Amino acid sequence: MAAPARPLSRFWEWGRSIVCVGRNYAEHAREMGETPPCRPLLFLKPASAYVRPGSPVQRPYYCQRLHPEPELAVVLGRRTRAVSRDDAMRYVAGYALCLDMTARDAQDTCKARGLPWTLAKSFDTSCPVSDFVPKERVADPHRLRLWLKVNGQLRQEGDTADMLFSVPELISYISEIITLHEGDVILTGTPPGVAAVEEHDELEAGIHGLVSMRFTVVQQRLGA
Amino acid sequence: MAAPARPLSRFWEWGRSIVCVGRNYAEHAREMGETPPCRPLLFLKPASAYVRPGSPVQRPYYCQRLHPEPELAVVLGRRTRAVSRDDAMRYVAGYALCLDMTARDAQDTCKARGLPWTLAKSFDTSCPVSDFVPKERVADPHRLRLWLKVNGQLRQEGDTADMLFSVPELISYISEIITLHEGDVILTGTPPGVAAVEEHDELEAGIHGLVSMRFTVVQQRLGA
Ligand SMILES: [Mg+2]
Ligand SMILES: [Mg+2]
Ligand SMILES: [Mg+2]
Repeated sequence: MAAPARPLSRFWEWGRSIVCVGRNYAEHAREMGETPPCRPLLFLKPASAYVRPGSPVQRPYYCQRLHPEPELAVVLGRRTRAVSRDDAMRYVAGYALCLDMTARDAQDTCKARGLPWTLAKSFDTSCPVSDFVPKERVADPHRLRLWLKVNGQLRQEGDTADMLFSVPELISYISEIITLHEGDVILTGTPPGVAAVEEHDELEAGIHGLVSMRFTVVQQRLGA
Repeated sequence: MAAPARPLSRFWEWGRSIVCVGRNYAEHAREMGETPPCRPLLFLKPASAYVRPGSPVQRPYYCQRLHPEPELAVVLGRRTRAVSRDDAMRYVAGYALCLDMTARDAQDTCKARGLPWTLAKSFDTSCPVSDFVPKERVADPHRLRLWLKVNGQLRQEGDTADMLFSVPELISYISEIITLHEGDVILTGTPPGVAAVEEHDELEAGIHGLVSMRFTVVQQRLGA
C-alpha cells in the first residue's frame, strides 16, 4: 500500500494553520509586564514559518532582539469545530516541540501602537519544529518538561503543568472561533525565562524524554 | 490527462496562507482615525477563514459590529521569496475578490490593549472569496473598481488606483518577511466607506466587469 500523501509525521509540509497562545504561563506573562489573561490570547503564524533541523533560524532584518520560546505544539488529527473540553482530546493526533521565535523589539512596537503582531511573530523560520510525537507516547500533555539551551547553557526550563489554560481548554476555545483541520497546530505558550539570542548562537531545545532539536541563528540580510 | 490535484481555480481549498494588508487606501485609514502607514501593515487569516458563495458569513458570538471590507485578492502562482518590485508581477497567477470581514468592536479592543488582531480578523468565514480570475483577464490590477452592496443598496465603492502600496510593492515587501507559495493570497486593503452589517443582511460584492458574489449574514450562537 502506498504511503499517505499527507503523513501526520510530516505535518509541517502540508498543515495549513498554526494558532499560537500567548501568556499561557503566569510567570511568563509577568516577566513580560502583563497580567495573566482571563481568556486565551491568540495569534497566528503562516505555514511558511516552519523550519526543520538542518536549516538555520533567521533573525529578521528589522529585529535586534530575537527570543526563542520553547512551546508544546498540539497537532490536530481531524476537523475540529466547536468541540467541548470533554471531547477535545479525541481530536489530537500528537505533539511536537516548537520554538515560537519572537522579534521582541517589533512586538513592543506593535503593542505600543495597537498594531497586529505579524512582524513580531510570523516571519520566515519563526516556527522551528521537532519531529512528530504520536499521542500514544504522551500519557499526559500536562506533565512534560520543556527546556532550551543556548550554546550548551540551560536558558529556560518549565513544566506544562503550569499552563493557565489546559490543552483541552485551548482546543475548545479556539475551535469555537477558528475551525481546525488535520495537520493544524496549536502552540501552547512558553514558560518563564525568555532572553535574546544572537547570530551564530546554537539553540537546542527539547521535551524531556521525548524529543529534541538543534538550530543555528543567522542574521537575515536584505539583498543577500 | 488528469486534472491537477491543486487547481489554482480552487486555491481556497488548498492554499495555506492569507496575508492581509491594512490601511492601504488613505481615505479608509483616515475614516478609521489612523494616519496612512509608511510601510504596509500586515496581518494574517487562517485558511479556515475562506467561505464560498452558498454558505453564510457568520458574525462571531463575541461581535456586535461586523464590517465587510471588499478587497482585491492577489493569488500567487509559485514560490515567492524576497522578489524585487520589478519581478513581482511574474509570480502572480491571478486575482479574486475577498471580503476582509472585520469584528470592528474586537479590533478596537485589540488596538487599545496592544493585543494581536486575531479575534478581529481571523474567525471562521472571515474571508468570503469569489471565483478565481486568471491574470490574463486583468490588464492592470490598479485599474479595477471594487463595490459592495448591502440588501441591494450600494454601500462602498472604490478604485484600486487609490492603493497606497501597489501590488508589486506589496509582493516585494511581504516576500522579504514571509515566503509566499503557490495558492497563497494577499488581500490588498479596502477603500473607504465601511459600515456594519446585521444578521440576515444580504451582501453582494464585485470587481466591476470581472466577478461578483453574494452572501447572507448569520449570527454565530455557541452551543447551536
Ligand atoms: Mg495561516
Ligand atoms: Mg509564545
Ligand atoms: Mg481590510
